[in-house]
Amino acid sequence: MTHYKVTLAYDGTNFAGYQVQPKQRTVQGVLQKALTKMTKGQPVHVDGSGRTDSGVHALGQVISFDYPGNIPAESMLKAMNSLMPLDIEILKAEIVDADFHARYSAKGKRYLYRVARGYYTNPFNRLYTGHYPYKLDVQRIEVALKDLVGTHDFTSFAASGGVIVDKVRTIYEATVREDPVTNEIIFEFYGNGFLYNMVRILVATALEIGNGRRDVHDFQRLFAVKDRQQARGTAPASGLYLKEVYY
Amino acid sequence: MTHYKVTLAYDGTNFAGYQVQPKQRTVQGVLQKALTKMTKGQPVHVDGSGRTDSGVHALGQVISFDYPGNIPAESMLKAMNSLMPLDIEILKAEIVDADFHARYSAKGKRYLYRVARGYYTNPFNRLYTGHYPYKLDVQRIEVALKDLVGTHDFTSFAASGGVIVDKVRTIYEATVREDPVTNEIIFEFYGNGFLYNMVRILVATALEIGNGRRDVHDFQRLFAVKDRQQARGTAPASGLYLKEVYY
Repeated sequence: MTHYKVTLAYDGTNFAGYQVQPKQRTVQGVLQKALTKMTKGQPVHVDGSGRTDSGVHALGQVISFDYPGNIPAESMLKAMNSLMPLDIEILKAEIVDADFHARYSAKGKRYLYRVARGYYTNPFNRLYTGHYPYKLDVQRIEVALKDLVGTHDFTSFAASGGVIVDKVRTIYEATVREDPVTNEIIFEFYGNGFLYNMVRILVATALEIGNGRRDVHDFQRLFAVKDRQQARGTAPASGLYLKEVYY
Repeated sequence: MTHYKVTLAYDGTNFAGYQVQPKQRTVQGVLQKALTKMTKGQPVHVDGSGRTDSGVHALGQVISFDYPGNIPAESMLKAMNSLMPLDIEILKAEIVDADFHARYSAKGKRYLYRVARGYYTNPFNRLYTGHYPYKLDVQRIEVALKDLVGTHDFTSFAASGGVIVDKVRTIYEATVREDPVTNEIIFEFYGNGFLYNMVRILVATALEIGNGRRDVHDFQRLFAVKDRQQARGTAPASGLYLKEVYY
């Protein structure tokens, strides 16, 4: 057996998320099917750095797996790509120590969220951005995002119903920038871990702050109240990208 | 009755082309259904500047139609957009003379064709570009495209089986440029009219010239032989955009 770390990009539009589900087209399912084809039937189980929801994209998802035999990393890259559908691209393959685990070895993750401006949705980016047609003060969002940096209890920003008890996470960077060419604003969040739907809830709240409907320091209040109902909105999956996983 | 000229953009991915077909989702069908909803059931027939195939996009398709009553142009724009799916955007509505016809009044059209470079397809632009992974000499294509400008018989570049007998068309501009940011090359063709599949056949031939598999002046030879089999390839629909219609 050889242990591989593989980095990939995918367009999440036509997947029912990352994780295998019966009768659904999933990223993990497509990967495992391709690897099992390469082994001529011997099942290969793939571990991902984390799930992504249906419609959520990845620029740098990471998986790890054991594979029978010893294929050079470059050949693994080519073999996997030759079996991938057009909405997945294998970016990198590496042979790593047997104790490397895409999920448990991860030290941090970076997410990007694209928001299209303008009154109408643009037909060409509807699957790749969120959309906010209302007025926005981006400098106000910049100020608000500074409150996210540090270690906080993100209970107000986690989808309810999860099994995770510890909702304390550390955010190292939270930024927003405008792209005048595409008329988008782009958020980036870099932290040691993210709860289910957390980035999408943070973005929805940040947009309400930028619109003036919330106090500029509302993130501080939301950390204190620990109540998901107070944050309310969830930005759409289409704007979210898992950009990088750090080990 | 008031006569309208309406300009629109669409993502052609999920349409079976522009023209109405039974039981298929088409751009014309969606437009006519929306306008018929606005009239509360009185059918509205829409004329387009021309058909686009399934998967072909439009940045500036033009339609014309008669509409009962007299809605201001700005209200027509808003009313239509409110009934459009996310993959169509109405860009402009104008009230025009009754003799304006989106197809018969057109004096010229401009098409754009995007080709993604790189060995692998990029999951995020697979629906919006063609793809050419082989080596390309873009300057060689620039030289070749000069042979297209002028009035020529495009029999070698028309899909067979069409009913159009006169295959002489005039090309005013044929250019190619590189976009280093996106690693794409972008063709533009501006002419008085285009035959079925003509732009996609021209692009496929130009790429073979750029790769060195055809003589740099092969367009001249193909004009002379008047044989579709000699041009062979057709670039995929996903890279093609109807950019502008001129009146």
